[in-house]
This record gives sequence, structure tokens and C-alpha cells, in this order.
Amino acid sequence: MKNIIIKTADLDEMETRHRAAFVNSLGGFKSAVLIGTKNKEGLENLAIFNSLIHIGANPALCAFIVRPDVSPRHTLENIIETGYYTINHLNTETYQKAHQTSARYPRETSEFEATGLATAYLEDFFAPFVENSHVKFGCEFVERINIELNGTSLIIGKIVYISVPENCVEDDSFVDIEKAGTVTVSGLDSYHTTKRLARMEYAKPDKLPLTK
Amino acid sequence: MKNIIIKTADLDEMETRHRAAFVNSLGGFKSAVLIGTKNKEGLENLAIFNSLIHIGANPALCAFIVRPDVSPRHTLENIIETGYYTINHLNTETYQKAHQTSARYPRETSEFEATGLATAYLEDFFAPFVENSHVKFGCEFVERINIELNGTSLIIGKIVYISVPENCVEDDSFVDIEKAGTVTVSGLDSYHTTKRLARMEYAKPDKLPLTK
Repeated sequence: MKNIIIKTADLDEMETRHRAAFVNSLGGFKSAVLIGTKNKEGLENLAIFNSLIHIGANPALCAFIVRPDVSPRHTLENIIETGYYTINHLNTETYQKAHQTSARYPRETSEFEATGLATAYLEDFFAPFVENSHVKFGCEFVERINIELNGTSLIIGKIVYISVPENCVEDDSFVDIEKAGTVTVSGLDSYHTTKRLARMEYAKPDKLPLTK
Repeated sequence: MKNIIIKTADLDEMETRHRAAFVNSLGGFKSAVLIGTKNKEGLENLAIFNSLIHIGANPALCAFIVRPDVSPRHTLENIIETGYYTINHLNTETYQKAHQTSARYPRETSEFEATGLATAYLEDFFAPFVENSHVKFGCEFVERINIELNGTSLIIGKIVYISVPENCVEDDSFVDIEKAGTVTVSGLDSYHTTKRLARMEYAKPDKLPLTK
């Protein structure tokens, strides 16, 4: 393949949407999830995010980035107001509706209703889950870290309630999310299924790379 | 699919490696990248990370999580010492060697040499790129944000030098990383190729979800 080189000055000259598409592509394949929330008046909200990251396993922590200037700010308001939210994996059946939650619906609109994604309330967990997400979990809000550079925030939560398909949990507790139908996203709008190449053994300096 | 429910008390009781495998799986498909650095004495370092996130397009910012208590701390030391690092996508040819960089090699070992991944120095960019990565970019260190909760840090960088295959850049500047052979990771050790379902149109409240 012949490569082209793009530098800061080239990025500066790009049209805004082109730059957004280009720079978002560089992040690789990302986790696309729906975050479900509810405010104290009971109004539900659902928004797609593609910046979920693992922070730690003990305690179980994850985080995502919010831009306070765009639509999913309702998600942030609800999380801070109530302390709870759900994270729901996209799959081949739900990804188009999930993408549609990124439209700028008015405050009083539930994206569950607007897009036709059904809610699920599990036991006494406060925030709504997505019924048709196979892998989903509930989080307690822990910390908001503001990134002054560009006005975004990292929202950290503790994973406290998890629902996963029983037949996707392997002997070592790895969850086969490909088997569960989870999809991945690249750039801002490209959705993909996956095909496993291999699971790799825990790497040690004196061994060659080994597949499980 | 029949789902099982796991709560905080269940996580607490899991064996450490099982909990790590389980909780890491919940993050969905993630971006797996090799981060290349060099210290002031010229010693090169290469380490795999699966927590890359997009922070913003203007300026072009990305971030990743480091755990100071584990092997890739050499990456962090070099970034802080020199201010530069490279981020290199994994592909089907390189992912096994890339995984092998997670082994705890001694400080004086270059993971480029130990795993057989060749370096590439592009123009006058300080840090080494991975020759066989098709999508790669150079970053300037911008900020370290410590997450007190579990001792991890978010490392934010500005993307200043990008090399991508010319035939993978589409008309709207989206980069087709699937065409470039980029792979994705789930959990700690499962690598996957992808197959595109669709690119979606920019979502608007008065339209149904539309594919491009």
C-alpha cells in the first residue's frame, strides 16, 4: 500500500466534518455502546457513545468521554443527578436504531421511544437497560474528570450489575462477545461484525507468541 | 439467549485472573495499538495498549490509560522524558508479535528486536513507528491526568503526524481501517478481523436511520 502523510498544518486546513471523520478513524475499532439513564422525574434517555474504556477490574471501573456541547449532555445531567446509568452493547439487530439516538432529540423525548428500542428494568437497578442488548451492565457514578484542553469530561463509573448470556462465558470467565453478537464501530458511523483470529496466551519473555 | 446476573459481591469473590478476563470483556471491542517510544539514550520501547480513545478532532487529541505498576511503564517514562510517541494499528500480520510485547522484558530490551517488529523512522519524528503497521501516527505528549481511584493515569496527546494508506481514504476523509487490515481486540487476549455492516448517515430526529 502507498501511504500518504498528513501533518498538523494539513489537519488545520481540512473542512470541519472531514477532519472529524478523518481523526475519528485513527482511533481504530471502538466499543459502541448505548448509555441508558433516567432523571428524577422518570424521563428516560438513551445515547450512543464510542469512547468506552476499561479502567480496572478490582474495583471494576470503566469510563467514557462526554462533550458537554453536544446532544448526549442529557446523559451526563441524568448521571450526575441520579448517580446511575446502564451500558448496553450494540448488536446486528440494534445498531441502526442505536445510531439514530445520536440525533438531536428535544429534552422531553425518550430516545427509547423515538427509536423503538425497548427498555428493560432489572431488579431494583434505577436506570433503564436496553431489552435487546445481549451484554449489558449497570454502573454507579464515581467521578467526573474535566479535560480543560477541549472542554470534554471523562466519566468514571463502578460496574455493579452485569447481565451476560450464560453460553458466552468461557471457562476462564472471558465473555465471548462475538458469540453474543456485539458489533464494533470505526470513525463516526461505520459499524462492523467481527471474526476471531485467535486468543493469545499470557505473554512471557522466554516464549514465542502462542495461541490458546 | 439465557442471561446470568453478576453483582459486586460475585465479582469480589472471583479469582483475580478470572475477574480481569471477565471485566475486560465488558468493554466491548477495543482499539489495539502498539505504542512506540525511545528514551534520550536511544533505547527503543514498544508496548501494546487496548484503551485508546478519541478526545477531539480540533485540535486532534487522543488518550490512553497506563497502569504504572505494570510493564508498559517504560512507555510512560519515555513519553514524559522525551515528549513524543507513536501509535500503530495492529493488523493480521502483526497482532501475534504485538501481543508478545506485553511480556515483561527487562528495561534494556527493545521489544522491536525481541518480537521481530521492524522500526520505521519517518522524517524527523523522534519516536519509532512500526514498519508493518499500515495506519500509524505520531503524538506530542500534552497532559497526564491521574485517576486516584486505582492509581492509573490518562495520557493525552496531540496527533501531529499521520501516515495512512492512500487507497483507504474515502471522499469524505473517513479512513477505511478495515480495508487497511486493522484488527480489534476483546478482553485481554482475543483478536478479531471485521466485516462492515454499513456506514450510517448523520442522524436527524425527523428521519429514520439511513445507511450511506
